[in-house]
Amino acid sequence: MSLNFAKRMQTVPRSFIREILKVTQDPSVISFAGGLPNPRLFPCGPLAEAARAVIADEGAEALQYSTTEGHPPLREWIAARYRERDGLNVTADDILITTGSQQALDLMGKVLIDPGDTVVMESPGYLGAIQAFSIFEPNYVAVPLTEDGPDLDALERALAGNPKLFYAVTSFQNPSGLTYSDEKRRAVAELLKGTDVVFAEDNPYGDLRFAGERQSPLFAYRPENSLLMGSFSKIAAPGFRIGWVVAEPDLRHKLVTAKQASDLHTSTVCQRVVHRWLLDNDLDEHIAKICDCYGTQCQAMRDAAKEFFPEEVTLTRAEGGMFLWAEMPEGCSSMKLFDLAIKEKVAFVPGNPFYVDGREANTLRLNYSNAAPETITEGMKRLGQCMKEYIAGR
Amino acid sequence: MSLNFAKRMQTVPRSFIREILKVTQDPSVISFAGGLPNPRLFPCGPLAEAARAVIADEGAEALQYSTTEGHPPLREWIAARYRERDGLNVTADDILITTGSQQALDLMGKVLIDPGDTVVMESPGYLGAIQAFSIFEPNYVAVPLTEDGPDLDALERALAGNPKLFYAVTSFQNPSGLTYSDEKRRAVAELLKGTDVVFAEDNPYGDLRFAGERQSPLFAYRPENSLLMGSFSKIAAPGFRIGWVVAEPDLRHKLVTAKQASDLHTSTVCQRVVHRWLLDNDLDEHIAKICDCYGTQCQAMRDAAKEFFPEEVTLTRAEGGMFLWAEMPEGCSSMKLFDLAIKEKVAFVPGNPFYVDGREANTLRLNYSNAAPETITEGMKRLGQCMKEYIAGR
Repeated sequence: MSLNFAKRMQTVPRSFIREILKVTQDPSVISFAGGLPNPRLFPCGPLAEAARAVIADEGAEALQYSTTEGHPPLREWIAARYRERDGLNVTADDILITTGSQQALDLMGKVLIDPGDTVVMESPGYLGAIQAFSIFEPNYVAVPLTEDGPDLDALERALAGNPKLFYAVTSFQNPSGLTYSDEKRRAVAELLKGTDVVFAEDNPYGDLRFAGERQSPLFAYRPENSLLMGSFSKIAAPGFRIGWVVAEPDLRHKLVTAKQASDLHTSTVCQRVVHRWLLDNDLDEHIAKICDCYGTQCQAMRDAAKEFFPEEVTLTRAEGGMFLWAEMPEGCSSMKLFDLAIKEKVAFVPGNPFYVDGREANTLRLNYSNAAPETITEGMKRLGQCMKEYIAGR
Repeated sequence: MSLNFAKRMQTVPRSFIREILKVTQDPSVISFAGGLPNPRLFPCGPLAEAARAVIADEGAEALQYSTTEGHPPLREWIAARYRERDGLNVTADDILITTGSQQALDLMGKVLIDPGDTVVMESPGYLGAIQAFSIFEPNYVAVPLTEDGPDLDALERALAGNPKLFYAVTSFQNPSGLTYSDEKRRAVAELLKGTDVVFAEDNPYGDLRFAGERQSPLFAYRPENSLLMGSFSKIAAPGFRIGWVVAEPDLRHKLVTAKQASDLHTSTVCQRVVHRWLLDNDLDEHIAKICDCYGTQCQAMRDAAKEFFPEEVTLTRAEGGMFLWAEMPEGCSSMKLFDLAIKEKVAFVPGNPFYVDGREANTLRLNYSNAAPETITEGMKRLGQCMKEYIAGR
């Protein structure tokens, strides 16, 4: 007997990161390869109490099937925060709760992408989005990221090709750590205005700012035909799989239809536990703790890079989030560096899977959220040594 | 600005049931339209304690990102139960945890169905599967269900057309309540052997048997190229969204790739809470309580049908599950009956959405799991009266 898989499965990249994580399970390896929030910061006690209380007090409803759109009070909580902090004109009705923000990417692909449609991606771009969209067989157009956002000329050319979708992580991007400046946000919105292009802004890291000034989402400047995604994974805990997407009615109704076919609805229990925790605790106080921790760890990584990396290697300057992005001189291969590094018991993600053109990359993603400063320093020392040897030996 | 949705969204039926549920939210309506487990039976206390304990004791892991395949001890628990009760040769590795068994349907569609591929469905068939598969634009071939399973001649003809997939709910089917006899299970397996057709057996209700003898899944007779789906929604609670699919390595690896792109993984918290509850409680004792309750309610519905329904209306004989299926004389329209019934404050789901050929149906689905016997009797009395008036007035 043989199995004939659907054609779309030939275009989906295997998760490179999953393969790498297998290599890095050796506890003697210092890994900057993951993308995990620091579990020391999970509010276990308050969440345990919220979970107990929700099931004990609201069991009949908390444990039952529920609406595809999500738990109304949680949707209202999210909408209120957008209104109060970002001045966005959104109500609970505009919010669709998703099973992690990854699901929002799958639903967008289902609802918008016909095979051959053009999707504009940042370069480098978020791997999870590349995986989700690839199932629906788009053609990608890559727009390079610069220090303060996308290359506007390249974006203008890409938008002129009448793409279906432009997907962007505007703050503390995964993988680069880069953030769109306010000027770039306005400029991108101007380029989008008057086009039918759906703009999908993914903002899971926006709250994790440890330097600089708070910014409005790009969505604020061009809400028409736009989606704004968020997540509790980085500010509460990923294990609940609670994300959301803000969308206008036409688009939202289609997303709801697709979601119903995908998993009926997101866990009622998880939605209510997160909501109860938000009511009974101070989210901003909790976020301040996370930012404090990640800011220290990021600084440790930057200091160590200055001390141990070869001069030719550049590093992005992140003001928040979980990642830095290093670039070796042109022609270097971060895959080859990986092979050397893993022997020296330090790991990272080579840049390759973050490019939709499948290039051989001289870049690497470094995660700092899930290691203590001393560990970061030691890992960067090992990595710097590997870089020096690799670059010298070319 | 205008929105161009993907072509696939034109083929997905809107959820008819959702529309009906809106009409039935009036508390004076007795509704047999839902498909909800009885919340009185949810084990709230033990689940609340399991949730508290899991987060308090295992927070760092329970709240973190985890593997796409699922929580290993839960996968082992499911495999062990199949080995012990059904003699299936499966291990933890063969199990993929899904976000409800609805997600397994979506993943199957993603992995197997190219536009235009043939999918064999039972007639009537499960609406959630029709919705999930329709996103991937198959051609459906319908095989009529009889009292003891599918019409074998029709199935043989359908399989001769080299379909990609045959999807079946073999025990206490939604919507019909019908169950494949052991003879039919063996006969279907014989028809499938030697073909490349993927057989997908969905068994969310199998444990809810209140009459007759326990049966092995059809999967046991033809495990090659087959999938077996299960769910904790009907035996624990739907609010966790924990289902699973048993699959051989080739197929499972593709499903895992598709799941990673869909939602990364199913809630770590929910998986661990359900597992903890399974360890600390007696599942079979709990299932016995559910069966006892549903058996009583089913009997109330059958007794009331005998007393109040017109003689020409037939009812399936369910030995478990949550549904009965009524058939009016040919030419009757259950949609027209619905309009009459809702005025008399009783609701059901007209058969139409359960047929892939979009026919005008003379059938209706009646749910008995979520109402007390007295309520069932009163609702059936109202419905019987409507049927008599409708049939007499034709």
